[in-house]
Amino acid sequence: MTNTQVTLLQIDNYGPWTVTPEPRREADLQTLQSRLYADVSQFVGTRDGYVFFTRFDNIIAVTNGLSLEDHALLQESVDNRYPVTLSLGVATGRTPAQALSDATALLQEAGSAQDKNRRECLEGRTIDDAHRTDGDVQIAHFDVIDATGEYTDELNAFDTFIEIEQGYASLMRYMRRAHDSLAFFVGGDNVIVVCPDLEADAYEEAIHHVEDEADVELQVGVGRGDVAHEAGMAAKHALEGCRANGTRVELDW
Amino acid sequence: MTNTQVTLLQIDNYGPWTVTPEPRREADLQTLQSRLYADVSQFVGTRDGYVFFTRFDNIIAVTNGLSLEDHALLQESVDNRYPVTLSLGVATGRTPAQALSDATALLQEAGSAQDKNRRECLEGRTIDDAHRTDGDVQIAHFDVIDATGEYTDELNAFDTFIEIEQGYASLMRYMRRAHDSLAFFVGGDNVIVVCPDLEADAYEEAIHHVEDEADVELQVGVGRGDVAHEAGMAAKHALEGCRANGTRVELDW
Amino acid sequence: MTNTQVTLLQIDNYGPWTVTPEPRREADLQTLQSRLYADVSQFVGTRDGYVFFTRFDNIIAVTNGLSLEDHALLQESVDNRYPVTLSLGVATGRTPAQALSDATALLQEAGSAQDKNRRECLEGRTIDDAHRTDGDVQIAHFDVIDATGEYTDELNAFDTFIEIEQGYASLMRYMRRAHDSLAFFVGGDNVIVVCPDLEADAYEEAIHHVEDEADVELQVGVGRGDVAHEAGMAAKHALEGCRANGTRVELDW
Amino acid sequence: MTNTQVTLLQIDNYGPWTVTPEPRREADLQTLQSRLYADVSQFVGTRDGYVFFTRFDNIIAVTNGLSLEDHALLQESVDNRYPVTLSLGVATGRTPAQALSDATALLQEAGSAQDKNRRECLEGRTIDDAHRTDGDVQIAHFDVIDATGEYTDELNAFDTFIEIEQGYASLMRYMRRAHDSLAFFVGGDNVIVVCPDLEADAYEEAIHHVEDEADVELQVGVGRGDVAHEAGMAAKHALEGCRANGTRVELDW
Repeated sequence: MTNTQVTLLQIDNYGPWTVTPEPRREADLQTLQSRLYADVSQFVGTRDGYVFFTRFDNIIAVTNGLSLEDHALLQESVDNRYPVTLSLGVATGRTPAQALSDATALLQEAGSAQDKNRRECLEGRTIDDAHRTDGDVQIAHFDVIDATGEYTDELNAFDTFIEIEQGYASLMRYMRRAHDSLAFFVGGDNVIVVCPDLEADAYEEAIHHVEDEADVELQVGVGRGDVAHEAGMAAKHALEGCRANGTRVELDW
Repeated sequence: MTNTQVTLLQIDNYGPWTVTPEPRREADLQTLQSRLYADVSQFVGTRDGYVFFTRFDNIIAVTNGLSLEDHALLQESVDNRYPVTLSLGVATGRTPAQALSDATALLQEAGSAQDKNRRECLEGRTIDDAHRTDGDVQIAHFDVIDATGEYTDELNAFDTFIEIEQGYASLMRYMRRAHDSLAFFVGGDNVIVVCPDLEADAYEEAIHHVEDEADVELQVGVGRGDVAHEAGMAAKHALEGCRANGTRVELDW
Repeated sequence: MTNTQVTLLQIDNYGPWTVTPEPRREADLQTLQSRLYADVSQFVGTRDGYVFFTRFDNIIAVTNGLSLEDHALLQESVDNRYPVTLSLGVATGRTPAQALSDATALLQEAGSAQDKNRRECLEGRTIDDAHRTDGDVQIAHFDVIDATGEYTDELNAFDTFIEIEQGYASLMRYMRRAHDSLAFFVGGDNVIVVCPDLEADAYEEAIHHVEDEADVELQVGVGRGDVAHEAGMAAKHALEGCRANGTRVELDW
Repeated sequence: MTNTQVTLLQIDNYGPWTVTPEPRREADLQTLQSRLYADVSQFVGTRDGYVFFTRFDNIIAVTNGLSLEDHALLQESVDNRYPVTLSLGVATGRTPAQALSDATALLQEAGSAQDKNRRECLEGRTIDDAHRTDGDVQIAHFDVIDATGEYTDELNAFDTFIEIEQGYASLMRYMRRAHDSLAFFVGGDNVIVVCPDLEADAYEEAIHHVEDEADVELQVGVGRGDVAHEAGMAAKHALEGCRANGTRVELDW
């Protein structure tokens, strides 16, 4: 059974900071946001977690394997190197959406995202090592079948982008409502979804739903592990199986 | 009249590179993509352009003010510092979508995104300085009214994200179809749209459309300039006007 | 007694790469070198080690607390994100210079730094957790007394730099010969030295030597710990003691 | 005749910032310093200048071709993305050392490097385009003959480092005193020197001096141009000539 540990990282008072004393150059904000995200991805990723840029001022991570001390160190490192600070909420749950909901509530109780007195909160709890299992995390890696041939080499780059966005938006809503899962676009034509215990039929239905609703054809590889990196790498290999076998759904187990 | 210069930057042969000889760690791919985007944002942004991460392997930029030599230098700098290379297509057009369409076609004619022999193409043309005007670029900066109060401090972080994505997806489709405009989510609750010559009524209709279709309430500031930075900064200041005046649409002229 | 674990990180075949097919833009090489170093500093530093840029193509780190698996992961992450690769040699020793000597030999035996067939070696061993103690690492943090008043605000920036370099060169040679210690300039007017078990008199003599030979006045704080971060942070606090007390040598124990 | 435009970039109030409220993690300071330097290298380097890390809190650049507006933009971009700010002094001179001296004085007159009220000064002047010539910048690129064979593959990494540092320290002092030139170690076994108008004999004497004083054998390629990149790239090519021809000094003209 999955037991996903989810961390919500929120930049403190970011909206006001971006316009004080005056609006800041947009290209600089984009650079700051992207590099902050990249640093969080390295810190968490080299500890075998996964990080999704989400809205950049609110970043969601799967942090099974990271302790609260790890979270505090990340927070301190960001404070030493950036003009902004992060508040972190950590929670675990039967489903990824439940865990994220609890993580969000921890921060909301500490104060508004734009409360200038709320700085560098660290709230929540991680899973004791003794209670961790190989089935804690389930990751599904979807991509668009032959995106390069169907879209990238055929349509203009924005129309390709619209098609992929529509496919993502459809999958994201469906997986959230049907399965309490969290779906994230990760570049190219790839969407990574953090799931509870789902079997092949759930993924087949999701693929049919997106095909019907958005006319985008997906395939998916699914993996499990005690940490996001294990589950996600197994999912990537399973996805290579879809390419090799011409199948739409491949589970790593 | 607008005369948008658009550059499409495409990583050469990226899909195959990410899985050769084996699939690479996802967190490292995220870090690579984000930092490459950040570098492009700095190069173009300090030359007064705007860069949007789009799909990360395909990046769209508004490059009025940059020459082909500038583009070649960016390409060379990336080649010196990254394990991947970029192909660039540059075009201008009556509308942003037209310019992007032409920029895409230039690359498609040079070869597939996954053609291992297509490397570091640089195709297209820039606007002669003699033909540049203060009306070349129109930028609209939308954000969600009171996103922090309505969403961030109330819903769980993923449900907030879904709401903002739905608003973005709706605005993106509408602006593309109705106005040949290119809309990009830039973090937080912000969407920047690159437009042709539009007036206040076009923006009011867009806002109503999104409210009806996605139940998300937007406001917008719009600016013009000879370069994206001028137009975009004017748009940011106009958006501050929306906040100050309680209006939904503010044009900088 | 100290038991320093030292890692030598060497970029594979770097000299030839920088001039193939043609010499590369110097500013890009500087950016690549600095950012690679920064990434190594984050990876090792968040695991409580210290990293010194040294010659940039050869980087020296104190890695007590890091395992060989950690080293392999760092190597893999660099391979995924840079156009170059790293070979790593890890060794431990009674003195830092002895450990570094052994780490160097491990790489030299695997092949020349410019052997195009030598790629991503990982050789050596780390200290078993069972054998680690609080006295494994000794770090001394030197700085120039009132550098700002004496130099920065008085001389031109290069002449200040020459003075600080001469002080560093003198301290570096002395500490290597007298105490098998490794001294590294870390910016500003600061030099961090990795030492075996030394007492106050050894530091007093070092300070006198540098004053006589280079006419540069140093003060020093010294700390010990099971990892570089503990020892180094204790040294920083001890150095604040020099400032507060007007002393030249402060030991944290 | 050379007319070097030199910029001194100084982090405002850095010493106090690094220990307030407490000393900060050393690995984070190293990361911050290196990435700030890398960003300055990209900004100036893509405008054809050269940047040398020097002491990291004091960075020296050759900025022929950059205007005061360029300098202001760099300052603004750093302010938007880092927890520290930069003050900049720009000057030109018959010799590089003279220009740097004047640039330093401009900042010293504005206030101490640790004056908490001195923030983001921008003082000085750049060369009018009308007065720029192809001989404005002279760059000499030295390296150690067969460093890999003589040192890297033979000695331990620190003893190699000591040898190269001694060679650098000797060249740095000599070129400053004899020729008002600024020498910077740039990684590996390379030293780049910014010179006034010097001919082959001056370089031959410098090489003999370093051989006698430090027992390190150097070779050098020298180039000229209107900007550092042109002069420096010509110097790199000339240095390749030393390797090909077995000569010690090669001038590009």
